[in-house]
Amino acid sequence: MSGRTIRKVAIVGAGLVGSAWSIVFARAGAEVLVHDADASIRAGVMERVATSLNDMVEFDLIDDISGVLSRIRVVDTMEEAVGQADYVQESVFERADVKRAACHEIARYMRDDAVVGSSSSGIPASVFTEDVPKRSRFLIAHPINPPHLVPVVELVPAPWTDPDILPWLYDGMERFGQAPVIVRREIEGFLINRLQGALLSEAWALFREGYATAADLDRCVAEGLGLRWAFMGAFETIDLNAPGGLEDYARRLGPLYHSIAASRTKPEPWSAELIDAINTERRTHLPKEKLRGRCEWRDRRLMALVAHRRKQPK
Amino acid sequence: MSGRTIRKVAIVGAGLVGSAWSIVFARAGAEVLVHDADASIRAGVMERVATSLNDMVEFDLIDDISGVLSRIRVVDTMEEAVGQADYVQESVFERADVKRAACHEIARYMRDDAVVGSSSSGIPASVFTEDVPKRSRFLIAHPINPPHLVPVVELVPAPWTDPDILPWLYDGMERFGQAPVIVRREIEGFLINRLQGALLSEAWALFREGYATAADLDRCVAEGLGLRWAFMGAFETIDLNAPGGLEDYARRLGPLYHSIAASRTKPEPWSAELIDAINTERRTHLPKEKLRGRCEWRDRRLMALVAHRRKQPK
Repeated sequence: MSGRTIRKVAIVGAGLVGSAWSIVFARAGAEVLVHDADASIRAGVMERVATSLNDMVEFDLIDDISGVLSRIRVVDTMEEAVGQADYVQESVFERADVKRAACHEIARYMRDDAVVGSSSSGIPASVFTEDVPKRSRFLIAHPINPPHLVPVVELVPAPWTDPDILPWLYDGMERFGQAPVIVRREIEGFLINRLQGALLSEAWALFREGYATAADLDRCVAEGLGLRWAFMGAFETIDLNAPGGLEDYARRLGPLYHSIAASRTKPEPWSAELIDAINTERRTHLPKEKLRGRCEWRDRRLMALVAHRRKQPK
Repeated sequence: MSGRTIRKVAIVGAGLVGSAWSIVFARAGAEVLVHDADASIRAGVMERVATSLNDMVEFDLIDDISGVLSRIRVVDTMEEAVGQADYVQESVFERADVKRAACHEIARYMRDDAVVGSSSSGIPASVFTEDVPKRSRFLIAHPINPPHLVPVVELVPAPWTDPDILPWLYDGMERFGQAPVIVRREIEGFLINRLQGALLSEAWALFREGYATAADLDRCVAEGLGLRWAFMGAFETIDLNAPGGLEDYARRLGPLYHSIAASRTKPEPWSAELIDAINTERRTHLPKEKLRGRCEWRDRRLMALVAHRRKQPK
């Protein structure tokens, strides 16, 4: 038993991530019921959604705001939110006990054939669904924030997740315009944060050892590597970087990359001193009081990039 | 003694990289003399350049093709190319003995105050300039291919490089529209390939251990991480990813990233079996005979992205 076609979606936990998820589902035609245990958060949902939708119109990412808004409704009880849902996206605060309590409450009201995806970015589902009734219907569906702009979603089953759910949710997410990936079993950090962490760890080490400033390390990405990774993954990049493809590239450069990896077998913690040093450099480029404005810049750059990507041949 | 303002540039080694470099300098107004020891490569330079310029016009990346072309001239001898040059960009075949021979020949004809940057992507300058006359004028200036589209350039001094050259070439590259970074001392892979290698190594490991397909690992980058890295570096990304900035982010997530790094202290070589497995998967998505066409797609995506970036607020 996998699940029904996703027509009714419940969003549980309606902060920034939950609000963004409601756009993902509603813009593709689903009926979305949003619930948060906190009444003040519930009260802000529609304004957060409307603000995002207005930004998206400016970048030509959406045209029918009122249609999307009409499919999103905030409800006061968990029962009302999840009772009829084909799919529940759980986005409550990321702490195991909070997630566990939310999952228990979802399980109390959900249909037996509903599926629950958690936005957890780090805690695997096995940690907080072990004793939840209907636990075979729960898994991780982890987005990069905000999911209405960044398509990737990591689907990570717990050991007891019904295996039929993976292909079912994969198809569902694709139909909603997301880019799902399947993580075959639980691993710390899942895929995305492990890949990001590997690059970050090398950057921290190069900074710590005095090879370069943080700004120059950022330039290597933003003015170099990131230009290709904005439309190709790391494997496709090297596949196209040698006349004979990935095999050719890997045979020639594998030894170099292995040697680089072998030079990093004693990872150091991100010490308070090191954090201070990088933070101090960052603050010379961007004073703390400008952080918020820069986040707005990032969101607008992201929207412009997403709009650009939509016009490109795949 | 740093060097004169860069008005005359010599390109030594005129394959794909050298030809692309000639566009970088000529489009910004420099006079460019191009030399390659191989007459058949010399014969192809102007056509390669013209093809690239025509592509760039299509993407609104350049308007005055004939002006650029008029500033590029192919010459038959090393003496003619480098004799008057303020700056020499060496882009001969990447093998230490070939680089060494080219540097000796450049040194024979260059002005005493000229500077020579090598496009070497992996071999540090100390390996092939140690016994070259005027060796203090040589360093690495490593681009990501192709430099007329991807701005980053790594400047890596040898131990004997005149330290005044670094800020001088940094300024020069910025005026030519590139994004230079300074690598304070030699390290295997420099910065860019170390950062790329760190991410690749984690991707290979996740594939090897059966956590995900290569296609899904690529999606994590191309539909996720890469969208932010196309305009922000890894440090700026995390700086904007927590309310209190990088410091806040690092204190909360540093332990996770350290734990991820600590799980990878026994890097495995890219074995023939592993290369075969990933290559086999890649070939199901992109048969070998379509590699060349996909490279053209990549080049066009890159040009479209570069054109998009130029219109965005920094």
